[in-house]
Amino acid sequence: MWKSGGELALLSRIRARAGKAARSGLRLGIGDDCALLGVRKGEELAVTTDLSIAGRHFRLDWHSPEVVGHRTLARGLSDLAAMGARPVAAFLSLGLPQELVRKKNAHSASWVDRFYDGFLALAKQHETPLAGGDLAESPVAVADVVLVGAVRRGQALLRSGARAGDLLYVTGELGGASAGLSRLAEFAVSNAGQRQQTDRGAGLKIPHRFKSALDAHYYPQPRIAQGQWLAKRGLATAALDLSDGLSTDLNRLCGESGVAAEVDAAALPISHGATLEQALNGGEDYELLFTAAAGARIPRVIAGVAVTRIGRVINTSGRRNARRAQATLITAQGAQPLEPRGWEHFNQ
Amino acid sequence: MWKSGGELALLSRIRARAGKAARSGLRLGIGDDCALLGVRKGEELAVTTDLSIAGRHFRLDWHSPEVVGHRTLARGLSDLAAMGARPVAAFLSLGLPQELVRKKNAHSASWVDRFYDGFLALAKQHETPLAGGDLAESPVAVADVVLVGAVRRGQALLRSGARAGDLLYVTGELGGASAGLSRLAEFAVSNAGQRQQTDRGAGLKIPHRFKSALDAHYYPQPRIAQGQWLAKRGLATAALDLSDGLSTDLNRLCGESGVAAEVDAAALPISHGATLEQALNGGEDYELLFTAAAGARIPRVIAGVAVTRIGRVINTSGRRNARRAQATLITAQGAQPLEPRGWEHFNQ
Repeated sequence: MWKSGGELALLSRIRARAGKAARSGLRLGIGDDCALLGVRKGEELAVTTDLSIAGRHFRLDWHSPEVVGHRTLARGLSDLAAMGARPVAAFLSLGLPQELVRKKNAHSASWVDRFYDGFLALAKQHETPLAGGDLAESPVAVADVVLVGAVRRGQALLRSGARAGDLLYVTGELGGASAGLSRLAEFAVSNAGQRQQTDRGAGLKIPHRFKSALDAHYYPQPRIAQGQWLAKRGLATAALDLSDGLSTDLNRLCGESGVAAEVDAAALPISHGATLEQALNGGEDYELLFTAAAGARIPRVIAGVAVTRIGRVINTSGRRNARRAQATLITAQGAQPLEPRGWEHFNQ
Repeated sequence: MWKSGGELALLSRIRARAGKAARSGLRLGIGDDCALLGVRKGEELAVTTDLSIAGRHFRLDWHSPEVVGHRTLARGLSDLAAMGARPVAAFLSLGLPQELVRKKNAHSASWVDRFYDGFLALAKQHETPLAGGDLAESPVAVADVVLVGAVRRGQALLRSGARAGDLLYVTGELGGASAGLSRLAEFAVSNAGQRQQTDRGAGLKIPHRFKSALDAHYYPQPRIAQGQWLAKRGLATAALDLSDGLSTDLNRLCGESGVAAEVDAAALPISHGATLEQALNGGEDYELLFTAAAGARIPRVIAGVAVTRIGRVINTSGRRNARRAQATLITAQGAQPLEPRGWEHFNQ
C-alpha cells in the first residue's frame, strides 16, 4: 500500500485529488496500511483486478496519458458492471519509469498527472473514490487497477447461469473499439517518422476530423448503470463484459454455464465504420453480453444505451469441452462455428 | 480479471490450486468477472495493494521463484496485520516474460509454477484463498498483490491514533532482513561469473550453511495473529508494519498521528548478525510497530512472537511538518534526530 508522507510530492498530489466519497462505503482512504470499506446490510462485495502494460494494452506513442488513465479504470469498472455491482472504491498500483513521473518544468503536467486526469474524470463520473494503491519505479509502465463493488446478496450477475432457451443480448454497439484501433494504427504508419510519434508519452496528435472515429477505442464507457439495472430486476440469467471480443467472451459464458449458443450475424449491432470481423473478434468494446429467459421483458434501451437481441442459448451437443467452440454464427450462408478469435494472453 | 477458460493451461492450473475457503468469506472465486466476498455483521473490509517489480523488489538472479512468491504475498498480508484484520482473500496480477511461463520440459515446473508454490504455501498458512487476479505478458516481471481482510467495525489499528505519553513497541527483531540481503549481495559478488548467477529465474544457489542467515530476508513472516490479538483487545492506539525501515515508518506514524517519538537505541531487539544501522534503516522486516497507553498491559510475547518496548510518544515541538523528522534516537551519547533513511520510491 502507498506509504503516504511529505517526502513524496506525487503522492501528496494524488491524495489531495482522490477526494472523499463516504457515500460509496469508503470509510478510510489513502494514508494508512489499508483502506477501510463499509458494507451495507445484505450486500456482498465484488472484487476485480486488471493489469495494463505498456506495449501490450497501450502504447505511449499512440495513447495520450489521459486516454491510458481512462482505459485503465474502464477495464475494472466494466468487470463490476458485468456483475451488476455498484462501485465502492478503486485502487491503483502504478509502476512507472522516472521520466513519466517527472515534470518537464514547473508549469507543465507530468505524464502521471495527466494519467490521473483521465483516470479520475471517469472515477468521478461513476462516483468511485480512489482509495489506495502502490507506486514503484519500473522500466516499463504498468498499471494494475482494483475495483471493489457492492451488490445485494444473490443478485450478482454470474457467467454460469445461462440455460438452453434463454435469449442472448448485448448493450450498445460492437466493433467500434477495434475499428478505432485499426484507424489509429493506419494513421501512425502513414505518419511514421513524424516527431510526435517518437515523443514518448505524448500520444499521437490526431487531426480533429478523425477523433470521433477513435472515441470508442479511446474512451470506452463501462456499462455500470445497465448492469445494476439488470441485477436489481433479476432479469439476466448470466452476463459478462465484452473485453476480449464477442467470439471469445461468448464461448467463455457458454463454458461457465455448460451451454452452447447461436448468434444471428444479421442482428449484430455493428458500429458505423466497423466490419463483421471486428464486431465478432475485436476486443475492448466493454459492452455487456447477457442472457435472459425467453419470457423476460428486456427493454430496447436501458439507462440510455440500446440493447439488442443477437441470438439464443441452446444445449451443448456432446461432451462439454472448454477447448471447443460452443458458439455458432448463423449467416445467410448457413451456420458455422464461432471460434474464439479475440484477445487472449499466453496462448499455449 | 482473469478470463478463465480451457485455452489457458496456466490459468487452469492456478484455478485448480487456488482452492476454496468459504470460511474466510469468499463466496465466488476464480472464473467470473469478479470474485464475491461476504462480510460478517459488524465487520468492515480492509483492502491493500502492493506492487513488486523485478530489479527493484526482487532479482530473478538472486531470488528463487518460491522466495519471490512468498515475499509478494507477505508484503500484502503484513498490511492486513498492521490493521489487525483477518485475511479474507488475495488477488494477484502477474505480468511476466514468456520465458517465465513456459515449462522447459514436461517434467519440469515453470518459473511461474514455482512462484505459486511459494505464494500458495504462505496463503495456506494464513488461510487466505487466492480469489482472482490477472495475467499478461510483460517484458519485465511484475506482481501486484491485493489483500482483502475483515476487521470488526471500530477495531482497525490505524496509524493516526498515537498520543503523547503512549509507549512504543515492536514485534520480533529488527534488521534481520537487511542483514540477510547484505549477505546475499556479498555472496553474489564473490561468486560473480558463476553460471547460476546468470541463469535467469533460477535464483542463486546458496550453500546450506548460509541459509538460516537469509531466512529473515527470504521468508518474512507477516504478523497476522499479533495484529488481530491487539485489535481484538483494543490495546494499541496506533500501528503500522515495518516495510521500509523503522526510521521511515516511525516518522510516518508520527506524521499521521501528529506526534513525535523517542526511541531508546539500547532497547532495540536487533537481529543476530545485524547492525544498529540495519535495525533502524533496513526495510522489509515486516514486524509491527505499535503504540499503547502507558497503563496498557502489553505482554512480552504475543502468539509466540516477542514484543519489545523501544521508546515513547511525545508531543511535537513546533509546527507539524511531514518533511521534518519527528523521531529522535536516544543513545548513551545523547539524543539525535532519527531521520527517515529507509526505503522510499521516487524521492523527489
